[in-house]
Amino acid sequence: MKLNEHITTIEDVEEVNARLHEQAVQVGAETYQDRVKTQATHCKFGEGGICCKNCSMGPCRITPKAPRGICGADAHAIAARNYARSVAAGTSAHSDHTRELLHVLHSAKPEGPYTIKDEAKLKALAAEWDVKTEGRDIYDVAHEVAMVGLMEFGKPEGFQLFTRRAPKERQETWSKEGILPRAIDREIATVLHMTHIGNTAMPEALIRQGLRASLSNGWGGSMIGTEITDILFGTPQERETTGDLGVLDGDRVNIVVHGHDPAMSEMVVAVCETKEMNDLAKSVGAKGINVVGCCCTANEVAMRHGIPMAGNFLQQENVILTGVIELMCVDVQCIFPAGATLAECFHTKFVTTSPIARIPGAIHVEFKTESALDQAKDLVKMAIENFKNRDAAKVYIPPLKQKAVVGYPTDQIIRRLDGVTNSHVDVLGSYRPAIDAIKSGVLRGAVGIVGCNNPRVRPEFSHVEIMKELLKNDILVVATGCASQVATKYGLMNNDSKWFCGDGLRRVCTLVGIPPILHMGACVDISRILRLVAGISEDWGVPMPELPIVGCAPEWMSEKAVSIANYVVSSGIDVYLGIEPQVTGSSEMMEWITQGTRKITGAGFIINTDPKELVQSIIEGIEAKRTALGI
Amino acid sequence: MKLNEHITTIEDVEEVNARLHEQAVQVGAETYQDRVKTQATHCKFGEGGICCKNCSMGPCRITPKAPRGICGADAHAIAARNYARSVAAGTSAHSDHTRELLHVLHSAKPEGPYTIKDEAKLKALAAEWDVKTEGRDIYDVAHEVAMVGLMEFGKPEGFQLFTRRAPKERQETWSKEGILPRAIDREIATVLHMTHIGNTAMPEALIRQGLRASLSNGWGGSMIGTEITDILFGTPQERETTGDLGVLDGDRVNIVVHGHDPAMSEMVVAVCETKEMNDLAKSVGAKGINVVGCCCTANEVAMRHGIPMAGNFLQQENVILTGVIELMCVDVQCIFPAGATLAECFHTKFVTTSPIARIPGAIHVEFKTESALDQAKDLVKMAIENFKNRDAAKVYIPPLKQKAVVGYPTDQIIRRLDGVTNSHVDVLGSYRPAIDAIKSGVLRGAVGIVGCNNPRVRPEFSHVEIMKELLKNDILVVATGCASQVATKYGLMNNDSKWFCGDGLRRVCTLVGIPPILHMGACVDISRILRLVAGISEDWGVPMPELPIVGCAPEWMSEKAVSIANYVVSSGIDVYLGIEPQVTGSSEMMEWITQGTRKITGAGFIINTDPKELVQSIIEGIEAKRTALGI
Repeated sequence: MKLNEHITTIEDVEEVNARLHEQAVQVGAETYQDRVKTQATHCKFGEGGICCKNCSMGPCRITPKAPRGICGADAHAIAARNYARSVAAGTSAHSDHTRELLHVLHSAKPEGPYTIKDEAKLKALAAEWDVKTEGRDIYDVAHEVAMVGLMEFGKPEGFQLFTRRAPKERQETWSKEGILPRAIDREIATVLHMTHIGNTAMPEALIRQGLRASLSNGWGGSMIGTEITDILFGTPQERETTGDLGVLDGDRVNIVVHGHDPAMSEMVVAVCETKEMNDLAKSVGAKGINVVGCCCTANEVAMRHGIPMAGNFLQQENVILTGVIELMCVDVQCIFPAGATLAECFHTKFVTTSPIARIPGAIHVEFKTESALDQAKDLVKMAIENFKNRDAAKVYIPPLKQKAVVGYPTDQIIRRLDGVTNSHVDVLGSYRPAIDAIKSGVLRGAVGIVGCNNPRVRPEFSHVEIMKELLKNDILVVATGCASQVATKYGLMNNDSKWFCGDGLRRVCTLVGIPPILHMGACVDISRILRLVAGISEDWGVPMPELPIVGCAPEWMSEKAVSIANYVVSSGIDVYLGIEPQVTGSSEMMEWITQGTRKITGAGFIINTDPKELVQSIIEGIEAKRTALGI
Repeated sequence: MKLNEHITTIEDVEEVNARLHEQAVQVGAETYQDRVKTQATHCKFGEGGICCKNCSMGPCRITPKAPRGICGADAHAIAARNYARSVAAGTSAHSDHTRELLHVLHSAKPEGPYTIKDEAKLKALAAEWDVKTEGRDIYDVAHEVAMVGLMEFGKPEGFQLFTRRAPKERQETWSKEGILPRAIDREIATVLHMTHIGNTAMPEALIRQGLRASLSNGWGGSMIGTEITDILFGTPQERETTGDLGVLDGDRVNIVVHGHDPAMSEMVVAVCETKEMNDLAKSVGAKGINVVGCCCTANEVAMRHGIPMAGNFLQQENVILTGVIELMCVDVQCIFPAGATLAECFHTKFVTTSPIARIPGAIHVEFKTESALDQAKDLVKMAIENFKNRDAAKVYIPPLKQKAVVGYPTDQIIRRLDGVTNSHVDVLGSYRPAIDAIKSGVLRGAVGIVGCNNPRVRPEFSHVEIMKELLKNDILVVATGCASQVATKYGLMNNDSKWFCGDGLRRVCTLVGIPPILHMGACVDISRILRLVAGISEDWGVPMPELPIVGCAPEWMSEKAVSIANYVVSSGIDVYLGIEPQVTGSSEMMEWITQGTRKITGAGFIINTDPKELVQSIIEGIEAKRTALGI
């Protein structure tokens, strides 16, 4: 174990995982590693996307001897339908999270618990959405903005307002191709309707509707979510934090906030930081309260408060297995139902807080906007009272911990770039310096690395391999979600990690004062990456599909990731996938997702399950774009 | 073959099916019967609902040795998620069909092609929805009503307006149980979000959200659809028609309208009835045009124009196999993709008209509201020109045809009941006479028989067995969708069929002048059945769950049917199913759908795949309700 040395290796992490798994065995619990073994034989029909359960005549499965389902749907129709439904489900998850935030904004008031933290951003959004601000109370403005946002989900006519933020070329492409997204919920319902028995059996039509629905997420739900989160809780800024299981503290009351929607976690964090609660913790023999994040909720609170990030998706059981968690408080998405069962083997209180994510065995405290602060206080007290129940015999805090610099929304990137702009010659507030670096070749390009981790492959290995290789090749990385936590965990997300970079990227990092992997937020914040690329496209005058900028999801796992991958492709950005989309049973669908979409949006998927090959194809893809641009 | 004898038997139908299947073999085509054989081994995981494809860590399948998926979801969580998604998909299909009709209403204008046919109904709806009518142009009113309807899909706050049409007791139950439905698309998106990886794993929460989403269909999307269809195309009235394949005419140009949304078929029917087109048909050697319906589109045009009903869901390939179809023109839902392929073996033009249902191999003519009439004309001309291509060697029109009396929306039922009301003593416009008949025991109760047909069982057999047994036991039947076409096909849907009834029901039929099986419309019109039962409940002063009225879906097949079954149960009406819902792999879910919902809504499913046993349990259920009421 190489604690406190510069970098954590995959072997270190796997050693810790093994040690924590022993912990599970000792308490008679199972973890995902056990379940991966019992589920080792995956259904080939399901993996290939050629099993149809959309009516009760079936299920039907496509084989050479049974090339069509009972209704006549073939492998292509079935795979396309299943795939489109994944996009719809992913779109619903990201966007519905935003809907909740809009309701929170609608309830915001000066006396709290929810207030306006970024008034300037609210006013800018109000102006963009034609909401009057002059002479109005800022909360009136907020409430009207919230209503405009909510109407983006259900307006009977018109398209997503934020698509106007895209470069003209994109807007025209979407319009011409008939994929300009209407109301978010309508796009979701349209997918379900088209995939109902006896409707669309043509892959192209489902691919197009998938792109359209995904756009209602990327340039709709998710982008609105990011804006509203910043308005309510403040736009993130560069700040230091730490990550990995070593952030847990044996001497303090450990509270984990886990999930995606920051409305609840913001309240918990606020309460944990009060003197009252820390004093209460001391009164039970603890040295205070240690609140940490897990999954995307970690990203949200790290970027806004510097809260340490205990772990990402596949780390959630490990967090509990340390035996020092008094309370794990979850909101929505990517929460293992296994967590509630596992918590029962420890003193850990496992609390669900949203009607969207009810889990058997959990304590359920439904967060309400009005009473959120009081409810958070009750939860923190519950954790403090639970400190005495910690069983020393079950405690193991792994010695892995890394420093990270987080908090690079586009606003922060621009601020950093302004720092290296010659304000006598050039305009401020642009991506010009970054563009110049790319043009000159000091920077070869950029990659957004996003997405989950997935036990289909050696977890985190491909993330780390790809990140390191890109840095070495002078390619800047921006990251969100679980990917940004991988970067943190392996010590790649701080200013020292410039030493992994090629000369060009290292020079840029030193000059601008940034890490070579920029933490742009939670998975909902991939909308920030869209705006970054759109901004570069506009400042450079080069359409998005032509930029040497691509996306990569080495270990994507969720339906949200399918929706994201589709909106990134719709935005003209190639997406490199380390896990195969489950349409491999249809040659037509494989052709559509890798080549067919190029004719519609100018981008597509490149799929390779070997990380070393995948990263080489990324580098080749970026260099090919450079060549085409003549740079 | 017993042509023109009083009743068609299942053996007659099966003989015809076999003959038409030979026709398929001769042209080198396959039919669903062939595909049923190649798909004979259904996946047990899929049938049990315990296969999860909601993330790419899987698919995961539950077995005794693998009781949890990788995330920890167990059989109950997985089955509940799959089931809830079926409800969402079914809700989307019915409701999205309505959305299209609302857009048609929004485009209606005096000069057509779409006009207001039932002004009184429009005005009544306007009053109900607080839209001013006084002194306003009826089309202005229509457009505003359309916008109110469209907002039911996406309004940020509030509940479905039509839930106020339910008896107070129901409204209070839905409110108390937290299942009062919000915007339709929101309920759909909520289901998808809850079932995304890492969200709800608790069957109860998913059952409740399923009920809520289904209510946004039954007392939302579907009910709005019925209203708007009546306003645009006229409220159906009692009329005579014919059904089964014998309605096809060897001497005329045969045009089939197939699907669900009547916006297109109404235009085709209108064009087919013009002298111009019939003259054109004569000019090519035909005796005229014979337009017939298939599936629910058949129900729509039969009820409004007396158009013959060629067949239901499983009859759609047979229609083409007769070799006399010049044009099959389809809109949305329940359209075999196989139809387009099969049509290629004949001269038949297979035309898709909606972006919701694109099928490879079909000619696509996307219907637009403004040009609908011209497009319909073009299609009818295409059919006429195609008459010459008919191949006499491939023609076989089966000799089966039955008379039917169709068109019993609640308005028509009330009119019939008014005919037997003593207007000196009693109020008109009520269900009193029917209630009195039930109270006295002359009528024992009523059953709504709805739903598809399904080759999992002997198609149509259970429908016919159940219908006949109910009539014999003095139980009135109301029917919609494919069930009503089964009744037609077997000669059970006309006034003569009262001779199959017990003495009580026969007396009622004779007195009121109705068939013992009342045709209430398409599957979207199950909303009419809801209003019928709600009306009886209010006129009687007995809550819906206590009435001796139940629903039955002997051979349901689609996700729409799952949504329907849920909203009927939500309405307090027991539903008897002849096909098992695909949750059999979860004991908890089986308990929830059969017993658990009773604690929430007062009703549940009774499942039995043996039609003889199923009908006995219906009769016992009705008699038990009578006993509880003391009648």
